[in-house]
Amino acid sequence: MASHYVVRSVERAGPEIIAALGEAGVATVHEAAGRVGLLGPAIRPRQAGAVVAGSAITVSCHPGDNLMIHAAVEVCAPGDILVVTTTSPSTDGMFGELLATSLMARGVAGLISDAGVRDIAALREMGFPVWSRAVHAQGTVKASPGSVNVPVVAAGQLVGPGDIIVADDDGVVALPIALGAPVAEAAAKRTAAEADKRAQLASGTLGVDMYNLRPLLAELGVEYVDRLP
Amino acid sequence: MASHYVVRSVERAGPEIIAALGEAGVATVHEAAGRVGLLGPAIRPRQAGAVVAGSAITVSCHPGDNLMIHAAVEVCAPGDILVVTTTSPSTDGMFGELLATSLMARGVAGLISDAGVRDIAALREMGFPVWSRAVHAQGTVKASPGSVNVPVVAAGQLVGPGDIIVADDDGVVALPIALGAPVAEAAAKRTAAEADKRAQLASGTLGVDMYNLRPLLAELGVEYVDRLP
Amino acid sequence: MASHYVVRSVERAGPEIIAALGEAGVATVHEAAGRVGLLGPAIRPRQAGAVVAGSAITVSCHPGDNLMIHAAVEVCAPGDILVVTTTSPSTDGMFGELLATSLMARGVAGLISDAGVRDIAALREMGFPVWSRAVHAQGTVKASPGSVNVPVVAAGQLVGPGDIIVADDDGVVALPIALGAPVAEAAAKRTAAEADKRAQLASGTLGVDMYNLRPLLAELGVEYVDRLP
Amino acid sequence: MASHYVVRSVERAGPEIIAALGEAGVATVHEAAGRVGLLGPAIRPRQAGAVVAGSAITVSCHPGDNLMIHAAVEVCAPGDILVVTTTSPSTDGMFGELLATSLMARGVAGLISDAGVRDIAALREMGFPVWSRAVHAQGTVKASPGSVNVPVVAAGQLVGPGDIIVADDDGVVALPIALGAPVAEAAAKRTAAEADKRAQLASGTLGVDMYNLRPLLAELGVEYVDRLP
Amino acid sequence: MASHYVVRSVERAGPEIIAALGEAGVATVHEAAGRVGLLGPAIRPRQAGAVVAGSAITVSCHPGDNLMIHAAVEVCAPGDILVVTTTSPSTDGMFGELLATSLMARGVAGLISDAGVRDIAALREMGFPVWSRAVHAQGTVKASPGSVNVPVVAAGQLVGPGDIIVADDDGVVALPIALGAPVAEAAAKRTAAEADKRAQLASGTLGVDMYNLRPLLAELGVEYVDRLP
Amino acid sequence: MASHYVVRSVERAGPEIIAALGEAGVATVHEAAGRVGLLGPAIRPRQAGAVVAGSAITVSCHPGDNLMIHAAVEVCAPGDILVVTTTSPSTDGMFGELLATSLMARGVAGLISDAGVRDIAALREMGFPVWSRAVHAQGTVKASPGSVNVPVVAAGQLVGPGDIIVADDDGVVALPIALGAPVAEAAAKRTAAEADKRAQLASGTLGVDMYNLRPLLAELGVEYVDRLP
Repeated sequence: MASHYVVRSVERAGPEIIAALGEAGVATVHEAAGRVGLLGPAIRPRQAGAVVAGSAITVSCHPGDNLMIHAAVEVCAPGDILVVTTTSPSTDGMFGELLATSLMARGVAGLISDAGVRDIAALREMGFPVWSRAVHAQGTVKASPGSVNVPVVAAGQLVGPGDIIVADDDGVVALPIALGAPVAEAAAKRTAAEADKRAQLASGTLGVDMYNLRPLLAELGVEYVDRLP
Repeated sequence: MASHYVVRSVERAGPEIIAALGEAGVATVHEAAGRVGLLGPAIRPRQAGAVVAGSAITVSCHPGDNLMIHAAVEVCAPGDILVVTTTSPSTDGMFGELLATSLMARGVAGLISDAGVRDIAALREMGFPVWSRAVHAQGTVKASPGSVNVPVVAAGQLVGPGDIIVADDDGVVALPIALGAPVAEAAAKRTAAEADKRAQLASGTLGVDMYNLRPLLAELGVEYVDRLP
Repeated sequence: MASHYVVRSVERAGPEIIAALGEAGVATVHEAAGRVGLLGPAIRPRQAGAVVAGSAITVSCHPGDNLMIHAAVEVCAPGDILVVTTTSPSTDGMFGELLATSLMARGVAGLISDAGVRDIAALREMGFPVWSRAVHAQGTVKASPGSVNVPVVAAGQLVGPGDIIVADDDGVVALPIALGAPVAEAAAKRTAAEADKRAQLASGTLGVDMYNLRPLLAELGVEYVDRLP
Repeated sequence: MASHYVVRSVERAGPEIIAALGEAGVATVHEAAGRVGLLGPAIRPRQAGAVVAGSAITVSCHPGDNLMIHAAVEVCAPGDILVVTTTSPSTDGMFGELLATSLMARGVAGLISDAGVRDIAALREMGFPVWSRAVHAQGTVKASPGSVNVPVVAAGQLVGPGDIIVADDDGVVALPIALGAPVAEAAAKRTAAEADKRAQLASGTLGVDMYNLRPLLAELGVEYVDRLP
Repeated sequence: MASHYVVRSVERAGPEIIAALGEAGVATVHEAAGRVGLLGPAIRPRQAGAVVAGSAITVSCHPGDNLMIHAAVEVCAPGDILVVTTTSPSTDGMFGELLATSLMARGVAGLISDAGVRDIAALREMGFPVWSRAVHAQGTVKASPGSVNVPVVAAGQLVGPGDIIVADDDGVVALPIALGAPVAEAAAKRTAAEADKRAQLASGTLGVDMYNLRPLLAELGVEYVDRLP
Repeated sequence: MASHYVVRSVERAGPEIIAALGEAGVATVHEAAGRVGLLGPAIRPRQAGAVVAGSAITVSCHPGDNLMIHAAVEVCAPGDILVVTTTSPSTDGMFGELLATSLMARGVAGLISDAGVRDIAALREMGFPVWSRAVHAQGTVKASPGSVNVPVVAAGQLVGPGDIIVADDDGVVALPIALGAPVAEAAAKRTAAEADKRAQLASGTLGVDMYNLRPLLAELGVEYVDRLP
């Protein structure tokens, strides 16, 4: 009943939007977007300090089978980010050094996987950043159909083909293209506002004063006491 | 029925006791204390090599709400350690760069959180050490009451306001003030004894001999054989 | 009914076989062996970049009791790797700096533990590599019998005494001695073949062409389309 | 940036299609649909033997806040099934006896929740079936905005408003309306075919013969031996 | 350093208070108390339909060691509830048919365990209700010291000796004695109020009207639309 | 490198030994055997009250592939118990009503699975007992080789072909044939002794007296006090 497709055409956000969101970082983008789009904390960075932003090429694989990752490489453009999912839970090592080599040859910026990766030392040495649910050397086969560039779910978050992906040490966020420009603008404002807030807090101003939280605390019935009654 | 308090006064252990326990480290303090006070392994360091010791300022928050962390900043003294918990399980990113800036401005030494943190790259760059259950960019609100400096449970361990916290790469331990001096003394003895044991073991002495375990092994019926029967 | 043994004699693979497998690394050895022997992803490296290979000295402990690790030290030879398991699930810190000192004095190459380790900062500084299920300072006793060099299960994988262990950033694999030579040979061939594949992929050849996957994709009914129907 | 909506109009599948899929059950529907639409195993039935099928009314809530469940009741029609999700992981008891009473008054057939439920004894007594990630009495607030009848993700599966939900002791499956008729037809054929297969297997025919698997086993190199070599 | 005690005297709440709280049930008591005292969802009922209320006799055991449960029996009075914890995480089967027989002989009303139980079929047949983190037949020893009637942490919740325990299909709640009377009163009011609310909701009144939530939804910016924009 | 086998011949324990162990039950068998052989608590009964004992027919499958379960049916004898494992972690529903029908036609007594099962309502109705890691409707393929009657690991426990399996509400235990007779004898003695102990405890004798634990408690430094110091 279900059919399997490799969708060749993907609409992408403009490079300056993507770059702006990458500079803002995951936490700021997630906030600026109204707290949507965040992948769950089970997908972790597998290196420290990497930050990437790009357009999602989505892959839906049978668990334990990386055939469709190979099929996806061809439709990747420079700067894209591969988002790999499986149709049932799996930690198998579907991705490693050879696939990373192939993706780097096409200019792909990174990998997000809801399953496992391997050759992690080589990936770090090559400078190919990955975010994954597991590190596991378990080998996979190339035998079952799946799809490329269909909507997928990664770590509880819907990701569509062409969605703007930002990933850093805090995790991964995915935004529909239409949100790219307004969120980039909101993120820039937020970053500017945070610089001011940071300066105030660094100089000793308290958050309860800066955010005017004392009336709220009083209204909520929080009592200040010297000793617990 | 339940009331919410910000308790301003906290009894603290003496700085030389705290410093001595910090030098001993988590594993030694936990042993010297008779194996009490250890937080569970779900709370992990989010940087490598940091060691902190200080007095606990405890915070009990509604999940997904960091209002009470802001309320807690004011009652922190230099060298204190903030211990944040939620009233039901949550991995939301309740703490990030701005709160860390505020805490550093007050001289707070670190954060222990039974929930999530974010801006982890900035926190590492700032040198503000955190131990947390999760890294997650998920934003939080400032809307629900909670308490500061009441007894809380973090990773299965009761932590009281003023408890001496030691945290390093092995995790986190919390001690009531009254245990501070005797444990510091016991820890120093233990560290000295360990230096001697380390020297013996480094020179090739076996633990079974150094601890005189051969009679125990015999008594327990452990047989030495050349091949498995 | 069950008896407890320390088995003194362990058959070991030849050092050149072990060295060859260590150079190949976990993922390649696991593949060359026909995808057998891999420990589950719950056992993680506790340092970055370490690679070890050696003969397994297996230990079966009561949970929360490291007596049998002490008993095992004596039967270790230089280059061996200690594989510690517990008879029911435990995250207690059964292994730390003193035991590592003792093992290094005997030339042991590393530790694999299906439970917890502690003194992790010291272990990293000493250069003693460990792979474990948890980092936890929780102390243990020396009171219950167990066995050394009997078959054990670590992270869902059977490990026999003398099995060849390879561990790196990807995890841990265990091979019966009899598989050592043929797997080393197969691994060398695989490594050579991968160099060629890597060169092809780096030059832009696609995996779907290099592995001739297009006919398979067609046979499986995967359709190439410009837009999702 | 993100906006919050209560979408009043939902397209629904025809009642005879829904009834047919309910009779087929989760496993058969999932198979007949080509193995798509299944929610992950973390969402479990909280009673034994219940089977429901209906149109999804989806709810996206702030964690720990059930305001939007109240907003959703109004847009439910008889036979609908409420699908509740939270924007970050939560086990709080967002749903209990009172909400079930309200839903039963509107003829709602059941609840699927990616968070917690409570009053579970009362729910069983009332005969209101629920599938949830957790049972937890933890109370929630009514304070944060969310949406009704937008696409949501439950246990890793995308669920759209109006999707056909089937839930039984095996779990939960969600199908787009367009798949309803063809899957119902395929499921009926499958059920008929299974009756025949069941009869053959019950009479002693082996699956390896009925499915003609012996040539495949031979081709895959599986050897039949009397003793392990 | 740490000492081990069996504390013989326990203050208990009055039987009518305990009975009233038991009739109210876990969810209502937790709400009436201001949403405090709830044990986490990892501790589950191991039978259906049981409801107990009583005074906590707390036990802190070494993991894998049930010595202190035996020591605790003597200090139990009729109607008490045993609350068993371990000093590090364990799923071992510390409690089974024999201990249940002993407790029933003393009139103990039930067991709450943060570890494992076994003989579960016999426990159900005997009518001795248990709530536990695991069911596991793993045997334990009687070898390590611990304490009876000291404050303990079970599933993330602090429980003191004499705390009023209520346990049912929703889980377990623990209340300090001082909260018993006011919470019982508040629970009775809440139950009465809920009867009225239930009647309104059963007659078709919507929660959004009964709780007057429409102004809040409007204020929060939730828009009612016919189709998603 | 690895080869795949279906091993036709399996040595089995005598039926009276198997029956005796089944009557003793999991907890008693595990104790009588010296606390060995127990599968971990992640494998749970999927019905209440079932007790089975039989000889293990072991199956090692590729995850998401039940081909080898079909191959295993043929080598099952009446009274056998199928023990299914996968070569990497999986919760897919590898087993359901049709396979149960086939196994019942051969007189197989039950299934132990380290992965998922489905059609759980039908399995309960048929009276075919299963113990599994998950209930999940996720379909599987018949495409990858594996083995029947080789040693496997299920929930952390090694299980060999022909091992005596006992499964009940407490979980699953596996014993080598050679342990069958002595363990059956020890179990019978244990059951008799337990009857006596049960009678003592039911009459009010305390475990601390019956097991003579007071001297041990004193030796371990456990102090009896009226109030916590």
